[in-house]
Amino acid sequence: MRTALMGLDLGGTNIKSVLLDARSLKVIIKRQIPTLAHLGSGAVIRILAGEIRYLLRVAGSKNISVTAIGLGSAGLVNRGTVRNSPNLPGWQGAVPLERLLKKELPGLKIPLTIDNDANCFALAETFCGAGKGFQNVVGLTLGTGVGGGLVLDGKLYRGSTGGAGELGHTSIKYDGPRCLCGNRGCLEAMVGSVAIVKRYNDLRFRRHLPLVPDITVAIISSRAKKRDTAAVRTLAETGTLLGVGLANYLNTFNPQAVVIGGGVAQAGKYILDPAIKEMKQRAMPFNVLGIKVKAARLGPWAGAIGAALLTKSDNQNRQD
Amino acid sequence: MRTALMGLDLGGTNIKSVLLDARSLKVIIKRQIPTLAHLGSGAVIRILAGEIRYLLRVAGSKNISVTAIGLGSAGLVNRGTVRNSPNLPGWQGAVPLERLLKKELPGLKIPLTIDNDANCFALAETFCGAGKGFQNVVGLTLGTGVGGGLVLDGKLYRGSTGGAGELGHTSIKYDGPRCLCGNRGCLEAMVGSVAIVKRYNDLRFRRHLPLVPDITVAIISSRAKKRDTAAVRTLAETGTLLGVGLANYLNTFNPQAVVIGGGVAQAGKYILDPAIKEMKQRAMPFNVLGIKVKAARLGPWAGAIGAALLTKSDNQNRQD
Repeated sequence: MRTALMGLDLGGTNIKSVLLDARSLKVIIKRQIPTLAHLGSGAVIRILAGEIRYLLRVAGSKNISVTAIGLGSAGLVNRGTVRNSPNLPGWQGAVPLERLLKKELPGLKIPLTIDNDANCFALAETFCGAGKGFQNVVGLTLGTGVGGGLVLDGKLYRGSTGGAGELGHTSIKYDGPRCLCGNRGCLEAMVGSVAIVKRYNDLRFRRHLPLVPDITVAIISSRAKKRDTAAVRTLAETGTLLGVGLANYLNTFNPQAVVIGGGVAQAGKYILDPAIKEMKQRAMPFNVLGIKVKAARLGPWAGAIGAALLTKSDNQNRQD
Repeated sequence: MRTALMGLDLGGTNIKSVLLDARSLKVIIKRQIPTLAHLGSGAVIRILAGEIRYLLRVAGSKNISVTAIGLGSAGLVNRGTVRNSPNLPGWQGAVPLERLLKKELPGLKIPLTIDNDANCFALAETFCGAGKGFQNVVGLTLGTGVGGGLVLDGKLYRGSTGGAGELGHTSIKYDGPRCLCGNRGCLEAMVGSVAIVKRYNDLRFRRHLPLVPDITVAIISSRAKKRDTAAVRTLAETGTLLGVGLANYLNTFNPQAVVIGGGVAQAGKYILDPAIKEMKQRAMPFNVLGIKVKAARLGPWAGAIGAALLTKSDNQNRQD
């Protein structure tokens, strides 16, 4: 009988779900439904439960046995409880998501694991994406938030209470700008999308150029491609700061690969080239040797794919 | 038959060695002999081999079976080869220490492992010292150099080529002072002993106080205890910067404990109290919860004890 792993990615707008073939790790089915987050956590949990039941039925009809279910969520996830989830309004405090979801799924015999979405991203890219074949991978998601996930010695490293890998909240300038987390000079405060937009506006203002309304990182990136020098410089300065962070991660983890995803990463070479250059100048030469810095490959499905991999009993990376 | 683990710590001045009871991990024998580093690597390797033979004979005479031998050395250690060892003159480039040492010990059947001294420090403090009982421990050695060792999920994390845990070379101020490694604003450049002495001299100069000849961190620490306000302030400023680094490690590793050793750590509360205060203000609250920041407990023997633990077949931490 064919076996499969189920993964769900709980986003603020959509719930993405996949079934992965348990051997090849290839996607068999993928689906996306709205989260309806405005209806509150009870509704969202019923929608998740319904999606799991639906996928189990579909799998059954194809004679596929689902051996594990994983769920990725923003926020701090520890032992099935989600805290500080920024994109789920009304999820104040701690939501015991695993317990509540199991209550909606009486009789469920398949193991269910819940983890942070950046951890799922790192797992997915390590086992199925840009980091495939590597044992030590640092995953970084660049967007409004800057998140991190760590695959070390072939396994996800979660820390003592699920709080490891908060790479966006490591300071590269202790007297730098205040971050939302309370610290100063965090990578998120330096290379997150809010900082990029601010950098672009400041640069245009200093150059006596008119400010651009409704500017976003996506617009700055497309302007860079059209040789807007302020946009190119904004992304290069951002990349250089990112490179400081990357050098720190190289000296900390000595990884084989760093995989970079998230919306900001779509600025591609405009950010990554200066980032890699700065990283190589700053990191210890023996940690630079052979390092691969790669753009993520799985796009918006990384979260769901990584969730499916959470409960793989043996999560040693495979070289194939 | 009683079994034991042998550990040797190759320092620039002395070679320390221990036999640990393999069950209790208590020290059975400890010894210290001069390294004679000035005679070159060949002589040092013969001295190491002689010490191993001597300890094996002593063990044999006490009916103790040695099941593993570990050796700690400064520098980058990968697959038995030592690079960049700062305190062994004449060890230019890469020294294949494991191979050369085995050549001096023909017929040796006991597994021999070589690793970095900061890794040994972290292992020793986790299994036998201040971090005992914890699964996730960040070890930090503060001295002229600032080194790090990582015990994650109960195991030493070495990285892909032995270069992980270079925590002294993570930048907390990307435009800060140049570090010997080539980077800027590294923790070592901010809180290493050279930076502390410079901070004290600068402060005395600014206060129109006479400079103190032959000043060291040990002297600054003893002056702090005698209420020299410049010394107290120097150590407090150093501690605050150390706290920035500690916050980064908390958000990166979510450890249960950080164990701090090395000469600078002997300044005790004058550095650690401001460091812990700053760390708690900067790290994510969920990573601060329950964290223990502790002074190392094993003193100068940590390196040899940790070396003995390197080849423990199962290096899961024990709670006892």
